[in-house]
Amino acid sequence: MAAKAGNMMIAQSGGPSMVINQSLVGAVLTARASKEIGRIYGSMHGIKGILNEDFINLRKETVATLESVAPSPSSALGSVRQKPTPKDCTKIFEILKKYKVEYFFYAGGNDSAETTYIIQEEAKAAGYPLKCFHIPKTIDNDLKENDHTPGFGSAAKFVACSLQGLNLDNRALPGVHVSVIMGRHAGFLTAAAALGRVHEDDGPHLIYLPEKPFAMSRFVADVKRVYKKYGRCLIAVSEGIADNKGVSIAAQLSNEVDSHGNAQLSGTGALGDLLANEIKAKSKIERVRADTFGYLQRSFPGMVSDVDSAEARKVGETAVKEALSGAKSGSIAIKRKPGKKYKVSFVRVPLRKVAKFTSHVPLKYINKAGNDVTQAFIDYAAPIVGKLPKIGRLKAVPAGK
Amino acid sequence: MAAKAGNMMIAQSGGPSMVINQSLVGAVLTARASKEIGRIYGSMHGIKGILNEDFINLRKETVATLESVAPSPSSALGSVRQKPTPKDCTKIFEILKKYKVEYFFYAGGNDSAETTYIIQEEAKAAGYPLKCFHIPKTIDNDLKENDHTPGFGSAAKFVACSLQGLNLDNRALPGVHVSVIMGRHAGFLTAAAALGRVHEDDGPHLIYLPEKPFAMSRFVADVKRVYKKYGRCLIAVSEGIADNKGVSIAAQLSNEVDSHGNAQLSGTGALGDLLANEIKAKSKIERVRADTFGYLQRSFPGMVSDVDSAEARKVGETAVKEALSGAKSGSIAIKRKPGKKYKVSFVRVPLRKVAKFTSHVPLKYINKAGNDVTQAFIDYAAPIVGKLPKIGRLKAVPAGK
Repeated sequence: MAAKAGNMMIAQSGGPSMVINQSLVGAVLTARASKEIGRIYGSMHGIKGILNEDFINLRKETVATLESVAPSPSSALGSVRQKPTPKDCTKIFEILKKYKVEYFFYAGGNDSAETTYIIQEEAKAAGYPLKCFHIPKTIDNDLKENDHTPGFGSAAKFVACSLQGLNLDNRALPGVHVSVIMGRHAGFLTAAAALGRVHEDDGPHLIYLPEKPFAMSRFVADVKRVYKKYGRCLIAVSEGIADNKGVSIAAQLSNEVDSHGNAQLSGTGALGDLLANEIKAKSKIERVRADTFGYLQRSFPGMVSDVDSAEARKVGETAVKEALSGAKSGSIAIKRKPGKKYKVSFVRVPLRKVAKFTSHVPLKYINKAGNDVTQAFIDYAAPIVGKLPKIGRLKAVPAGK
Repeated sequence: MAAKAGNMMIAQSGGPSMVINQSLVGAVLTARASKEIGRIYGSMHGIKGILNEDFINLRKETVATLESVAPSPSSALGSVRQKPTPKDCTKIFEILKKYKVEYFFYAGGNDSAETTYIIQEEAKAAGYPLKCFHIPKTIDNDLKENDHTPGFGSAAKFVACSLQGLNLDNRALPGVHVSVIMGRHAGFLTAAAALGRVHEDDGPHLIYLPEKPFAMSRFVADVKRVYKKYGRCLIAVSEGIADNKGVSIAAQLSNEVDSHGNAQLSGTGALGDLLANEIKAKSKIERVRADTFGYLQRSFPGMVSDVDSAEARKVGETAVKEALSGAKSGSIAIKRKPGKKYKVSFVRVPLRKVAKFTSHVPLKYINKAGNDVTQAFIDYAAPIVGKLPKIGRLKAVPAGK
C-alpha cells in the first residue's frame, strides 16, 4: 500500500537570516515523520553543493542537534549567490536524477525562487517528475505574494532596538546621526527603525526609503530643520536610496556586482560617510556621525522575533506537507487575515509568481514628504516584530534656583 | 543630633554605556535613604549643565521611574565631552556654592575622573568642603586601579554576540570580513570578540589590538594564510590600531579632534573600508567586507551582562556610602579577589590615581604574533561578560554517493 519512498534534497540560498534554520528544521522534521520520503540530502551552499555533489545526510542529525541549530542565525547548510546557467541546470538535473531526488526544497529570496522555477521548468521539459518548492526567506521583506517574509521580523527587531539605543545615545550627546540600513530596493527594514519611538521627540526623526527619490538638497534641508527644533537629529537611511532617475546613491560609489546583476551595497561604510560629510559641508553642525549596520542586521544571535521564528518554522513544515499531499511545485506564502487581531495563513502559490521580481513598500506606508513612515506602517509591522525593550525616561522636573 | 543635610549634585559624562544609569539610580536611591543629604540635583549634560544651571530635581522621580531608567542604555542625565578650563572651574565652584552643594558625584571614564579631580583641587584651594566622587564607567575598560570597569561587560557581550553571528554568516557565505570595534588606546573590547568561539575553525581568526604595532603587510599575510586554511577569514580590529610609531591608522584618515585632544575614530566606516580595500588589492580574494560596529556597542538595549549591571549599580551605591561615611573624595574601583571563583570588592581609591591616564591590555592577554588573544584573557573576561547565546552546529555527516 505504502508509496515507494522518494529522496529529498534541501538547500539554502541568498543572504542568511536569523530564522532560516527554523525553516530548515521544520522541513527536515516534517519529512522525517513521513514514510514517503527516503533519503534526506542537505546540499552545502545551495546549488553550488549540487554541482559539486557536496551533500550531507540529514537523517544522521539528532533532534537535539536540529533543535539547537533552529534558533541559531545564518544558514546552517551554507549559502550561495549564484544564478544557474542553462548548462548548470542540465548538470543539476543529472545529479538530482543520479541521487534519485524526487523532492527539491530551496530556501531563499526572489533570486532563489527564480532558481527553483528554472529547475522546475527544466525537469518538466525532461519529463522528470521532480517536485520543486521554494521556502521564502528574506530580511528585505520584498517577496511578491507575501504579506511579509520569514527573516524580516527578526531583522526588523534588531533595527528597531538599535534605533532605540541610538536615540538615547543621541539625546545624551546631541548631534546628527545617520544609520544606514539594509534594503536594496525595498525599504521595509529601514522603515522598521520607527517601531521603537514613544515620545514626540524620539528619533529617528527622518527616514528615507528607496521607494521615494532621494534628493541631497532636500535631505540637508530636512536635517537642518529637525536639528533646529530638537538640537539633534537621528536619521535612518536605506542603503538602496536612489535619485530621481532611479540610480542608487551607494551604487554610484561601488563597482562590485553579483551574478544576479545587483551592485554590492553592504559591507562598506561609504554611503554613511558620504551623507555625513554632506551634512558637515552644508551646515554648521559639528557632531555628525554615521553607522552602517551591516551584517549584524541579519546575523545577530539572541535578538529574534518570536512570531517570525514560529512562522519561519511553519513555512518549512508547510512546504514539505504540500509536497507530500500531492502538489508538484510552489512557494509557501504568508497571507494575513483581515481583522484587528494578527492572524496569518500559509498558502501555496505558483513559483513564477514569487520568482525574480520584488515588491516594495506601499506608498500608504510613507508620508507625503518622503522622509518618514505612516501609522499604517507601524500597524502593519508591529505584530511581526513583537515586543521591544522598554525604555525608561526621567520625568526631569527642573530644580528651582 | 542629626547632621545638617547637605545638597548633592550628580552628573554623567563621556561616552554613554548600557549600564551607566544603574550607577545613577544606585547613587540616587542610596542618597534618598539618608537623612544627611538634602536636595539631589541632576546636572544635565555633565559640567555643561552646571555652567548653565540646568538642573533637575532627582527627589521628584518615583522609584518606578528610576527603576525603568536603570536598565535603559545611555546617560539619562545627558552627557558631555568637555574638559573644564580654570575659568570654568571657578564658575562651577561658584554655582555649586550657590546651590549649597556639599556632595558632587561624576560618572564617567578617565577624562571625567580628571574633571572630578580638578574640581576637588579647586574646592580645596578655596577652602570649600566639597566631597568629590568619581563613579567609574567606560566600555573601553581602561581605567587605572580597576580590574575592569562598569559598562565593559555589556559592551563586550554585544561584541562577542556580534562575532558569533558574523562567524556563522561568514561560514554561510565565505569570504573575508573585518569588524572594526571601539577602543581608542585599549583593546579590551576588541579582544572580547574572541569570547564566543567554540569550534577550532570559529572566527574571529585574527584579532588586532592597539597594544601591538599594526603593520599592513603582516596583516595582509595573516589574512591570506587564514583564508588558505579555512576558505574564509573573520577579523576583529580595534579602531585604535596604530603603527610602530604609535600613530593611529584611523586617525591618519580623520581630522576631527575633541576637547581632550582625542581624534574622532567612531561614527565613520573609513578604517574598515581602508583595510578591506587593502586586502582586495593585495590578494585575489573577491568577497571582502567590513562592518564598523559604531555606537551600537555602547547603546544597544536588551543586551546587558547581568554581572556588569549589578556592579554598575554597586559602584553608584558605594560612592554615596563612602561620602556619607566621612570620606572626602575618591573613585570607586572594582578589585577582583584571587581564586578560581569570580568575586569582586568595591574600594575607594584616590581620584588622581584614576584621572587622565589609561590602562592597557596586559601583554599576557595577547599572543606572541600579535594577532589573537590568549586563554588568560578569556579566563579574565568571561565571568564579567556572562552567558552568551548557544549556537548549534550540524554534525554534517557526508552523504554517500
